[in-house]
Amino acid sequence: MYQHTRELQFTAKPEKPDALYAMKLQEILGGQFGEMTVMMQYLFQGWNCRIPGKYKDMLLDIGTEEISHVEMITVMIARLLEGAPGETTEKAAAANPVLAAVLGGQNPQHAIVSGGGGQPKDSRGVPWNGGYIVSSGNLLTDFRSNAAAEGQSRLQSSRLANMTDDRGVKDMLAFNLARDTYHQQQWLLGIQMLVEEGYVENEIENSNGDWENKDAAHVFYTSTNGSRAGEGLWATGNSVIDGEPFRAEPLRPLTDDDAVLPAPDPLQYVTYDGSQGPGKPGNAAGAVGQQAENVVTKVKDAITGDKH
Amino acid sequence: MYQHTRELQFTAKPEKPDALYAMKLQEILGGQFGEMTVMMQYLFQGWNCRIPGKYKDMLLDIGTEEISHVEMITVMIARLLEGAPGETTEKAAAANPVLAAVLGGQNPQHAIVSGGGGQPKDSRGVPWNGGYIVSSGNLLTDFRSNAAAEGQSRLQSSRLANMTDDRGVKDMLAFNLARDTYHQQQWLLGIQMLVEEGYVENEIENSNGDWENKDAAHVFYTSTNGSRAGEGLWATGNSVIDGEPFRAEPLRPLTDDDAVLPAPDPLQYVTYDGSQGPGKPGNAAGAVGQQAENVVTKVKDAITGDKH
Amino acid sequence: MYQHTRELQFTAKPEKPDALYAMKLQEILGGQFGEMTVMMQYLFQGWNCRIPGKYKDMLLDIGTEEISHVEMITVMIARLLEGAPGETTEKAAAANPVLAAVLGGQNPQHAIVSGGGGQPKDSRGVPWNGGYIVSSGNLLTDFRSNAAAEGQSRLQSSRLANMTDDRGVKDMLAFNLARDTYHQQQWLLGIQMLVEEGYVENEIENSNGDWENKDAAHVFYTSTNGSRAGEGLWATGNSVIDGEPFRAEPLRPLTDDDAVLPAPDPLQYVTYDGSQGPGKPGNAAGAVGQQAENVVTKVKDAITGDKH
Amino acid sequence: MYQHTRELQFTAKPEKPDALYAMKLQEILGGQFGEMTVMMQYLFQGWNCRIPGKYKDMLLDIGTEEISHVEMITVMIARLLEGAPGETTEKAAAANPVLAAVLGGQNPQHAIVSGGGGQPKDSRGVPWNGGYIVSSGNLLTDFRSNAAAEGQSRLQSSRLANMTDDRGVKDMLAFNLARDTYHQQQWLLGIQMLVEEGYVENEIENSNGDWENKDAAHVFYTSTNGSRAGEGLWATGNSVIDGEPFRAEPLRPLTDDDAVLPAPDPLQYVTYDGSQGPGKPGNAAGAVGQQAENVVTKVKDAITGDKH
Amino acid sequence: MYQHTRELQFTAKPEKPDALYAMKLQEILGGQFGEMTVMMQYLFQGWNCRIPGKYKDMLLDIGTEEISHVEMITVMIARLLEGAPGETTEKAAAANPVLAAVLGGQNPQHAIVSGGGGQPKDSRGVPWNGGYIVSSGNLLTDFRSNAAAEGQSRLQSSRLANMTDDRGVKDMLAFNLARDTYHQQQWLLGIQMLVEEGYVENEIENSNGDWENKDAAHVFYTSTNGSRAGEGLWATGNSVIDGEPFRAEPLRPLTDDDAVLPAPDPLQYVTYDGSQGPGKPGNAAGAVGQQAENVVTKVKDAITGDKH
Amino acid sequence: MYQHTRELQFTAKPEKPDALYAMKLQEILGGQFGEMTVMMQYLFQGWNCRIPGKYKDMLLDIGTEEISHVEMITVMIARLLEGAPGETTEKAAAANPVLAAVLGGQNPQHAIVSGGGGQPKDSRGVPWNGGYIVSSGNLLTDFRSNAAAEGQSRLQSSRLANMTDDRGVKDMLAFNLARDTYHQQQWLLGIQMLVEEGYVENEIENSNGDWENKDAAHVFYTSTNGSRAGEGLWATGNSVIDGEPFRAEPLRPLTDDDAVLPAPDPLQYVTYDGSQGPGKPGNAAGAVGQQAENVVTKVKDAITGDKH
Repeated sequence: MYQHTRELQFTAKPEKPDALYAMKLQEILGGQFGEMTVMMQYLFQGWNCRIPGKYKDMLLDIGTEEISHVEMITVMIARLLEGAPGETTEKAAAANPVLAAVLGGQNPQHAIVSGGGGQPKDSRGVPWNGGYIVSSGNLLTDFRSNAAAEGQSRLQSSRLANMTDDRGVKDMLAFNLARDTYHQQQWLLGIQMLVEEGYVENEIENSNGDWENKDAAHVFYTSTNGSRAGEGLWATGNSVIDGEPFRAEPLRPLTDDDAVLPAPDPLQYVTYDGSQGPGKPGNAAGAVGQQAENVVTKVKDAITGDKH
Repeated sequence: MYQHTRELQFTAKPEKPDALYAMKLQEILGGQFGEMTVMMQYLFQGWNCRIPGKYKDMLLDIGTEEISHVEMITVMIARLLEGAPGETTEKAAAANPVLAAVLGGQNPQHAIVSGGGGQPKDSRGVPWNGGYIVSSGNLLTDFRSNAAAEGQSRLQSSRLANMTDDRGVKDMLAFNLARDTYHQQQWLLGIQMLVEEGYVENEIENSNGDWENKDAAHVFYTSTNGSRAGEGLWATGNSVIDGEPFRAEPLRPLTDDDAVLPAPDPLQYVTYDGSQGPGKPGNAAGAVGQQAENVVTKVKDAITGDKH
Repeated sequence: MYQHTRELQFTAKPEKPDALYAMKLQEILGGQFGEMTVMMQYLFQGWNCRIPGKYKDMLLDIGTEEISHVEMITVMIARLLEGAPGETTEKAAAANPVLAAVLGGQNPQHAIVSGGGGQPKDSRGVPWNGGYIVSSGNLLTDFRSNAAAEGQSRLQSSRLANMTDDRGVKDMLAFNLARDTYHQQQWLLGIQMLVEEGYVENEIENSNGDWENKDAAHVFYTSTNGSRAGEGLWATGNSVIDGEPFRAEPLRPLTDDDAVLPAPDPLQYVTYDGSQGPGKPGNAAGAVGQQAENVVTKVKDAITGDKH
Repeated sequence: MYQHTRELQFTAKPEKPDALYAMKLQEILGGQFGEMTVMMQYLFQGWNCRIPGKYKDMLLDIGTEEISHVEMITVMIARLLEGAPGETTEKAAAANPVLAAVLGGQNPQHAIVSGGGGQPKDSRGVPWNGGYIVSSGNLLTDFRSNAAAEGQSRLQSSRLANMTDDRGVKDMLAFNLARDTYHQQQWLLGIQMLVEEGYVENEIENSNGDWENKDAAHVFYTSTNGSRAGEGLWATGNSVIDGEPFRAEPLRPLTDDDAVLPAPDPLQYVTYDGSQGPGKPGNAAGAVGQQAENVVTKVKDAITGDKH
Repeated sequence: MYQHTRELQFTAKPEKPDALYAMKLQEILGGQFGEMTVMMQYLFQGWNCRIPGKYKDMLLDIGTEEISHVEMITVMIARLLEGAPGETTEKAAAANPVLAAVLGGQNPQHAIVSGGGGQPKDSRGVPWNGGYIVSSGNLLTDFRSNAAAEGQSRLQSSRLANMTDDRGVKDMLAFNLARDTYHQQQWLLGIQMLVEEGYVENEIENSNGDWENKDAAHVFYTSTNGSRAGEGLWATGNSVIDGEPFRAEPLRPLTDDDAVLPAPDPLQYVTYDGSQGPGKPGNAAGAVGQQAENVVTKVKDAITGDKH
Repeated sequence: MYQHTRELQFTAKPEKPDALYAMKLQEILGGQFGEMTVMMQYLFQGWNCRIPGKYKDMLLDIGTEEISHVEMITVMIARLLEGAPGETTEKAAAANPVLAAVLGGQNPQHAIVSGGGGQPKDSRGVPWNGGYIVSSGNLLTDFRSNAAAEGQSRLQSSRLANMTDDRGVKDMLAFNLARDTYHQQQWLLGIQMLVEEGYVENEIENSNGDWENKDAAHVFYTSTNGSRAGEGLWATGNSVIDGEPFRAEPLRPLTDDDAVLPAPDPLQYVTYDGSQGPGKPGNAAGAVGQQAENVVTKVKDAITGDKH
């Protein structure tokens, strides 16, 4: 359950309004790596976490902090929009011709839709969506995704910080940058703990590793003429899974499978030359193969009491 | 520029059709972490890479390999759909009642839209979109995002592998799993090289680190009652940036900023009690503040030749 | 700023797992009127609210409660997914043929993507997006949107409640239904207070009402042959704005404007018969009319010091 | 079935072109509350309405009028785009430097994609989508959603009207504003009639109200420190359902359910500490519980003729 | 302006309900090539058409007919959903075990969201969006897009027709198929008329054809090993533009441009090896080149009265 | 399988940077008809093609060429962005006031997100998505869709070409225009070959043509007052299917079906007047009708060995 405190986590007061910058700041509110993404990502990971204690608590603690960041940026945007042009374009431009640039560049929805408030959208007006987040239940892969998200988020904040001289904005971003610096390390240390505590053997997602294609796990395939990629550690180093060396090879087919498809269902009017024999109308049996027959057998057995 | 070879990179032949599994396999074709995502992500990163040589080549080499993976999965899906029900539902169910399950669960668009072929969509029919990919131009953050994507992709492939006994499908997935095992390491080794070659000081995105909020870069904020998150390395370890110790603290406001907003533009009909003084119609000047005045001054100077 | 409490707001324990129902329950988590929508809608309205005190507090209080509801439903979904089929389809179906139905109907991403956890998506797998929410800064219109959202949300929860006999699920839904009953009234009472306190004259959004087309504000247009819509209060009652009677009239053009368009820019290759005279290449001047000329004049004046 | 009349419903002629305003006007054509939304919303509600006569006729009458509004705004946008810059940017800017602002701010797709015509997109270029509309079959909740949509739509039109001095645009918007004033009342009067005619007991969606959680239907939960929300009618008034008083209480957990999740399926590689006992591979039986067993029993009964 | 007639254009009565088929039929209502697409596509093309008379009338006539088709399919879906499972899953399955299949396969939103009515979504629940339609103002390209849309739409309807034996459904689809047969021809005949009436020289969009790369307009590039594509008319025929022969050639770079990028702005932290010289902070001047300088010159001239 | 060559297919070097043009050029990279669309469309059609030889090779050859085009445009965009403003807005504007226009109009994500590189998005920032492409398995309809896509793509490129004087950009576009000229013809010649080789009887998709509604396949319905659409070949010509003449008729209902819906499931709370008799709770049996009974019968038969 959640509670709210009236005060912000950190001050979000610009020295002066700047409608163009408000438009840009939307990127770290509702963009791919905006605060809404990390908030939702950590909350869903936390709610879905199967380890009561420090991992689950950590996920929910930081997820909750991120709600506070969404709040902080939204307040900053509303303040940056103070006095943003909501009146006749002609009048505004006539009063100060340079403003024509702002009139062109600002987010029109800040005036038409949100009444001077922030929106759950990116800097170009694309709504935030749930397809941005990751929550797999597997902490190793999720922690790495989280470290990556903090890195991208920090980079965007850092670029945005270079686009303003406003001390109020910069103070808030100095706080955000620091949190992202810390959080990147937090997730990497989380991975280190998962290894130390034996949840995973190493930092590589390796489930079903016992039957994966061993050879394919050690080769870099070059496909570009004159590729120098073979100079990298990924071709000269060793696997952390089994210690075997990596190597580089030209990309080539490992099969003579030339991708010819089976005859199509004639009732779907797929253009076909007959080269794979006559197509048959789909009958579902084809589509489930042996499985369907097994099930029919089992239904009979369930009723007749037979056991195989 | 790109070339095509008729043979697939690896064999993609199921032992028998399975329309339900074809629906599920769409997840690693057109889902958030499907082959289309890594293909587009690496290609865009490669085309945008500013270091001719091993890094750019590596990005384009692997991006090109991923096109081959998109092709491989698409062929596998078309083959799994052989004989999938395209005819009258009633007839199919009557011929074999168990098939009703398949009739309910399969992807109807595989019959109605794509004529038995794969689609650039996920397992639930949501189209792949460009919002899934990352390409920032900063190799450190992008390589970490890539390692994360490979981890998520591998996990999904591994779960899918557990959902079938088909040897043909499993052989192909054994190849995919191995590539994902290798690629995870490749990206992490890429980060290691960036550090070794001096492109970055360490593995943490830290631009503008000289003026970020130092204190905020060392603290974990707990917000959950009885949180045990303070037991983690993220609270007991040290920063790799400056070696200073991390600590845990209860989340609290670091400000008395209570998020009160400025008076709104009266022409936007925002409900307001007047407590922040009278609102003024937006005039853009407000929205750009000093900047606009500076620019007007500069226009004059440019013409009069003045220098400040 | 936000805090988290480990306990849920209300118990979310199903009597037994039900993977099909978990798929359906996603609708009120990440659907158009799911808990994510009201959570984000109320939080954004609260952060953007310009009246410190009871209105802003109320928005943020209820927004915060809704975070707790998102948490509650997500936990319920994870519990409903216990034991959901993650293994070979064939084996599961063979063990119990009836399960084939569940295998067809369940959300495949619950197994492949989220590892048995809830997702920020609707019951059909479409990700939640920011285009669902409303936050205009105008409390009258937003409160009505909120009352409407609670009504739709309650209706969906009520229908979902009729689809299960699980006492645990029903207990939680009995709580959700009650909150939605209460919240519908809360928003309507909010509108009543806005009128009583003089923020608006009546319950109708009526800005710029002084110059709107008075006649068009009193007529219902019928366009269907034999329409009986004229029997409704909307045709027989009176306007709450000015007390004047409403009436019904057949829909008819109120103009002879036959929608003929101007000549196109020839550089855009728009097919055109020349009937509106020769088209001219766009020159922006046309597109901004007098405004552009005004601005040029003002630039000159700013520098020469002229005043009009 | 539908018919078309060549004349527009109302004149849509701007005094002069204005490419920037054309971009903004897209908001009420293809935005969240643009004319496309109300058109589709009312048509779908009408087609799905189960009461032949005044309600269904009213829905279809107004839905048909809204098609005419979509047409009207689209024509207005095409006329506002007359002479919009489609040629070399450099030339246009050189001919009149102030135009650079328009060149930056206008919708590039109006030149590149639509050849000077309107688009089914909002002011920022996001395509209209079917997730904006509501059609539940329940007229009470749908009418309230409709009243809310008309309010938001009117507010946006009113703000847009304040952004131009063009008499032609203002005349059309004066008509639109009036229709929205009227339509807001129409939907509220529709709710009043539903109550008067006994379709619902009162204005609150209250299905399954007999077993909802009574206590939770009467309390406002405050979660903000020092919240003054308890001063509102929603805490001091009475329920219209049962006349019982409302009250305010601090938000607190109503349960000791601490959201611990069950053991995960080991085949999904969800990170887990074993604290909830060993996880078992999903077998679908777990996921459907008693239901599956009932069905198997019923299959047997159907064949053996047994009755319970 | 539009009018509505109570009767449908064609009968839409199924012999019996079929919830699974209702789910599938959504594809031709709200899918990529559903009736909503052609309706919106033709209406926007008609509203934006610059030739008063037969072309504009034709576009608006058929666009209006398509509204009637959207209505027809929506009514059919609502009728197919009669008696669709809205109650407890367990009860339904127990009453008739085979129904479990329907319970798994049907569209849950038909029960939870739309109350047994159709939705503006495709068969997998993805909302219709404005990105599906085409309206360029150029009738040649739009008519060809229209013919293509009718072809895809007809193919999907034809496949759907093969999935049912219901005479009522088949009668309606026989009408739809015929309209699509006719409409395909209509658009192709429209192209023929555009040529005959001199709006275009031939059936190929060829604007700016005078300076396009002539050689590149006559060659097919093969990129697959052993490609037999050179056997096609596209390699053995002649251009309709200039009568010159086509030919096939292996795909090869026509340049030595190896895609090396310029030095990046150091303030964006793009990883870079310095090989292209030092990067400079962006200054916009770089980004607009000569154009910006021209404009500054023009501003000065506008004020000083100079003419070049 | 795919290979990469370091050189581009064609030179992509602008004479000078132009950040505004880079924003616009995104339309033909990641827009509805950008290079990503044709690339994905042809690759999916090729992978799904059931005719080994010239058709499948042709699809894969051109799909592969289009990957090269995506690369080419992306490189061009990165070069156009050289020196694009990434620093403080105020400083840039102060250095050269005219640049304010560029600062307003440029794509902010080019600076914040992609570090000066291209993105898989359109000119307004909407991400490319898989819903843009077509791959039906039916070559006739797909080839026509392809010809249409090339036409729209060429038109957009041609309009873009008119917006710049940069020789480098124009050279590349001259190549793109030529390829689109050629490709339009290629697809139309492909249709001609399909007819000549007997895969289809004529150029019209006509599956299930034997039982479509013959009369409805020959009539144009006018619905606009005074429509002149009857003057077109589509009303005066003959069908290519059967040679019968077309005609024009006023649109009218061909049925007295007035779209009344059946009684709703009372458990869904759909507003209803009882006029169609009492509604019954959904029981799925209703929703599958005779089909369900057939299946139950078949289950019994399968076990008892009965044959009907």
